[in-house]
Amino acid sequence: MKETQFVIEAVDVESMAKESGLSVLQLLASLAESAKSLARPPISKYPVGVAGLGSNGRIFLGVNLEFPGLPLHHSVHAEQFMITNAAINGETQLRYIAGSSAPCGHCRQFMQELRNASDINILITSTTQHGRDAEAVFRPISDFLPHRFGPEDLLNKDVPLLLEPRHNGLAFNNDDHSSIKTTGDVMAEDYEEKKDKLKLAALEAANESHAPYSGCPSGAALMDTEGRIYKGWYTESAAYNPSFGPVQAALVAYVAAGGGGGYEEIVAGALVEKEGAVVGQEGTARLLLRLVSPRCELKVFHCK
Amino acid sequence: MKETQFVIEAVDVESMAKESGLSVLQLLASLAESAKSLARPPISKYPVGVAGLGSNGRIFLGVNLEFPGLPLHHSVHAEQFMITNAAINGETQLRYIAGSSAPCGHCRQFMQELRNASDINILITSTTQHGRDAEAVFRPISDFLPHRFGPEDLLNKDVPLLLEPRHNGLAFNNDDHSSIKTTGDVMAEDYEEKKDKLKLAALEAANESHAPYSGCPSGAALMDTEGRIYKGWYTESAAYNPSFGPVQAALVAYVAAGGGGGYEEIVAGALVEKEGAVVGQEGTARLLLRLVSPRCELKVFHCK
Ligand SMILES: [Zn+2]
Ligand SMILES: [Zn+2]
Repeated sequence: MKETQFVIEAVDVESMAKESGLSVLQLLASLAESAKSLARPPISKYPVGVAGLGSNGRIFLGVNLEFPGLPLHHSVHAEQFMITNAAINGETQLRYIAGSSAPCGHCRQFMQELRNASDINILITSTTQHGRDAEAVFRPISDFLPHRFGPEDLLNKDVPLLLEPRHNGLAFNNDDHSSIKTTGDVMAEDYEEKKDKLKLAALEAANESHAPYSGCPSGAALMDTEGRIYKGWYTESAAYNPSFGPVQAALVAYVAAGGGGGYEEIVAGALVEKEGAVVGQEGTARLLLRLVSPRCELKVFHCK
Repeated sequence: MKETQFVIEAVDVESMAKESGLSVLQLLASLAESAKSLARPPISKYPVGVAGLGSNGRIFLGVNLEFPGLPLHHSVHAEQFMITNAAINGETQLRYIAGSSAPCGHCRQFMQELRNASDINILITSTTQHGRDAEAVFRPISDFLPHRFGPEDLLNKDVPLLLEPRHNGLAFNNDDHSSIKTTGDVMAEDYEEKKDKLKLAALEAANESHAPYSGCPSGAALMDTEGRIYKGWYTESAAYNPSFGPVQAALVAYVAAGGGGGYEEIVAGALVEKEGAVVGQEGTARLLLRLVSPRCELKVFHCK
């Protein structure tokens, strides 16, 4: 495994397990531990690593991210990173999750957005000997948040949950021909094309957003100095506060893509949300990006 | 009890229990239910009421507050309201908490900041018959967040926790003679005096702030059209994201004071935080107040 590989394909999972003499679940625990080195926690200096096993054998890693200068609710926990990473990569079901620390209540609540959350099993690696005895101590999520408050308290059963496919039906207003400015050193010849791509990526993201509680989906796309695009979408929690913002999700995509670069390499961004949304992201998105990516020019598009 | 009374003195608790033929714990459950009518949840339309019993027999109520136009992490949960209400009123220990809904993971995590959290008992009124059998189903917080992540993972045991007394030693820089502007209709004759009071109230609040993880305490004070002052302070969570902002805390003080007025009656505010704080509140405070209290002129003071 390359150090920056945040998604491990099933075939690689098999061969890594074989080589190391570990079961897949033991490997999962070991990957959660080693992922800690990829965390970016400048405030707490407390790195957390998480690894999740998808239904088809892929493994998704997650680490925590912290952003100095802002309130702590902007922080990305390793569990949220991992789940967002899985969502961006089209995973539809997580089965096992291993984490280097006990998941906090905020993350336990966020995980309730997964279908059949109570069937997902969690291991805290710090409470066990790494590796060999991992399988014995995976416990269901319901053990971590008994008497839960969750989607079933607010939604009908047929509403898609976090990793389930959806399309929010957002489209740009016809009169919206705004352009995206950037101060970055993106090559000039294909610049116009990249701006359009960025805007469309944010729209695509918004259409995958999980926002059943407020009805206000949103999505973000970020572009780095090389013109690469990273997109992520807003994910809501039944308990409101653990909801995960669109810019955070796009930053997860940026980190997970593995360049290891700083956020200052992000030079352009697009945010798509609904006009007059009762949950509006723009002000907070600007606040966050101004601090972490000062060069980034964020353009906001409102859909009907 | 007046409908807007968010703190019930011990003597009133006794007489209310006597009159109604309920035990104090049964009364607590009944008050959690009736507090729902005081909630302000314009987004979810899902009112939550919470009642907490302090060590000397006082009862503190809490309700949920939501703020349209902003990300949901600005929301105030009823549990956080109640605990902030207890803190502002000098309570040092909560023993029993009754809530109309299951506490979410975010709140279960926030409650870990209370000393001996595992000894505090929680009742969900919706899972029981109101009143008579309440005592039977109070369960310790540790039942709601087993294998917890909490203060002991990051702090020494002698660091004061949420309701414990502290003084953060913040003072204004000598050269700081900035004044607070307001567009409100505060009477002019004592206006200068009120501005100074507001600034000092925010400093007092900042000095009571629970911010052991970042070392960045902060406090806010808000003034209404009548010149009344409401203060609250920043409270940090070991898990970062559930931390509770200073303006939210001051809004709790405003609502708990019971006028029942809208946030638009708030016309001036002061925020005190550290210079160059790694957890900075200013941008977020301005974002929140611009939306909920458009007339409010917020002045920010940075301490060394
Ligand atoms: Zn967490
Ligand atoms: Zn809550």
